[in-house]
Amino acid sequence: MKLLLIGFGTVGQGLAELLIDKENILKDKYGMTVQVVGIADMLKGSVYNPGGVDLAQALKRAKGGEMIPGPAGGFDGDALAMIKQAKADMMVEATYTDIKTGEPATSHIRAALEKGMHVTTTNKGPTALFLYELEQLAAKEGVEFLYEGTVMSGTPLLNLARETLAGCRITEAKGILNGTTNYILTRMEEGLSYEVALAKAQELGYAEAVPDADVLGWDALAKVTIIANAIFGKKSTPEDFPCKGITEITAEAIAEAKSRGKRFKLIGKVWRDGDQIKASVGPEEIDLSHPLAGIMGATNAVTLTTDILGDVTIVGPGAGRTETGYSTLVDIIHVGGKR
Amino acid sequence: MKLLLIGFGTVGQGLAELLIDKENILKDKYGMTVQVVGIADMLKGSVYNPGGVDLAQALKRAKGGEMIPGPAGGFDGDALAMIKQAKADMMVEATYTDIKTGEPATSHIRAALEKGMHVTTTNKGPTALFLYELEQLAAKEGVEFLYEGTVMSGTPLLNLARETLAGCRITEAKGILNGTTNYILTRMEEGLSYEVALAKAQELGYAEAVPDADVLGWDALAKVTIIANAIFGKKSTPEDFPCKGITEITAEAIAEAKSRGKRFKLIGKVWRDGDQIKASVGPEEIDLSHPLAGIMGATNAVTLTTDILGDVTIVGPGAGRTETGYSTLVDIIHVGGKR
Repeated sequence: MKLLLIGFGTVGQGLAELLIDKENILKDKYGMTVQVVGIADMLKGSVYNPGGVDLAQALKRAKGGEMIPGPAGGFDGDALAMIKQAKADMMVEATYTDIKTGEPATSHIRAALEKGMHVTTTNKGPTALFLYELEQLAAKEGVEFLYEGTVMSGTPLLNLARETLAGCRITEAKGILNGTTNYILTRMEEGLSYEVALAKAQELGYAEAVPDADVLGWDALAKVTIIANAIFGKKSTPEDFPCKGITEITAEAIAEAKSRGKRFKLIGKVWRDGDQIKASVGPEEIDLSHPLAGIMGATNAVTLTTDILGDVTIVGPGAGRTETGYSTLVDIIHVGGKR
Repeated sequence: MKLLLIGFGTVGQGLAELLIDKENILKDKYGMTVQVVGIADMLKGSVYNPGGVDLAQALKRAKGGEMIPGPAGGFDGDALAMIKQAKADMMVEATYTDIKTGEPATSHIRAALEKGMHVTTTNKGPTALFLYELEQLAAKEGVEFLYEGTVMSGTPLLNLARETLAGCRITEAKGILNGTTNYILTRMEEGLSYEVALAKAQELGYAEAVPDADVLGWDALAKVTIIANAIFGKKSTPEDFPCKGITEITAEAIAEAKSRGKRFKLIGKVWRDGDQIKASVGPEEIDLSHPLAGIMGATNAVTLTTDILGDVTIVGPGAGRTETGYSTLVDIIHVGGKR
């Protein structure tokens, strides 16, 4: 299988490392030989080699702050040009997320699908905004469009809901979808103020300098929208659902809730209300006996309520270089691995 | 797809109800028409009809304490004779578990596989004792041998580990695999003595009159052995691993552990120790901050430790008529459903 890696930041590099580490397992267990034929990154340049890019060298250059292309050069970092001209079986879209426009990722994905390439992405822009359209396009072209890593990074929530729980009717998905805010709430319960807890999250690299996407709930909202579309078949965009972050929760409110056996969590949820699908993001007081109450720090978790099994909860990492890179590897195995 | 149901107790009846309830979903979503052509049960008799058994009628008779066969009769309850003579694509083995001999289930499974039938079972006897042999036989015959329901009933632990976490190396599986003992420990923490908590579990139908299989850890041990074989590739039987139950845990010990921020759980685990695979069942004091500590009542949970994702935990029901019946439905969809 020939791959294009579009975006060579943490996720793309995480996948590249896994492709090197797991080469033998991919061959022995899944009968796959995966070859990266092109890498394009806005900042790091691009390299294209139909015979296979030297991944170790590209990783070394990228980590050293160098441009990726060796003397052979590439497409001058023009991802779209590479997608249109390259011969590849699958594209990994891992550029930055723009949740307002979904670009440039959406254009990359459209171009790849139209060429008959399978696509996996970790990008919440195209998936929260245009999932239905992109899935229709993939179906028309007879290829797969996969996006396991957009929710809970490598923790396989979407595959669990759609494949492993085959035959179940899911009536609610409810969980902790943003590790940064969960970390902040955990530290606030230990006695830190919001400001200090946020600063700690920034120090650890969990929160960005402008933390709005996390603390105002937008990141969780994008994931909720993807769940609504992917698991509940609700054609929707983030604007369709109410969203509230954690900025108004005080240390006093957290302590007061604790005294009543409750714990604040930023909860994203999607549920059936009669024939309607509803969704929201906002802080909720969770009973300490609920599995979600025990999810502390940067961990994510989602409880799926089903007709047959009642509640099934999955707990795992919600972010991380290797973890998110792994989600694309699972999608690659899904497409190309023998069963 | 033509099915044989061998064993028509809670699991077989649970599946029969699901096949009726989910008929449309199976057709629309998975492109499957599932027809039960034979049912055999030691106590309730048997019915065989190549054109399809009337499932609703069989369910009604079984629930009313009647023999299953209508005037057309069957094989006089002789499951093995039916398996050998019937024309079917897949067999569901759901007779009672004999953890010492694995019979009669193992003979049923061998006969079906040898005839080229796919098999799904919820029976811990054959799977804990003869998994390797049965998987070899299935591979030789070119058919599937599936057993999702033997561990955590319908909660898809085995599929999660083997398919949804494709490419991960699992270094440990550790969890609460027996709902009855977890219920008893939960009630003891609330102040009940072991004897009273056991009586409550018996009242609720969680524990049997002779509760040894649960409280001495044997049920958890069978599941641990299946995990060792299925996920870790360790050719083993229950006798290979140490096993201790909960009968020596006192209410005082539970209270004392609680005062130190710990909680007793009956833990089954399998782990890699260098090149070796080890496994055990026994009570452990779990830190209250661990996801397994919050699993109360009859719920089951397993934490998988992986090289790529760190810990991934799945929480769900570990028993139940519909839940266990569902596990066989997932296996049936796995074999016959379009992707």
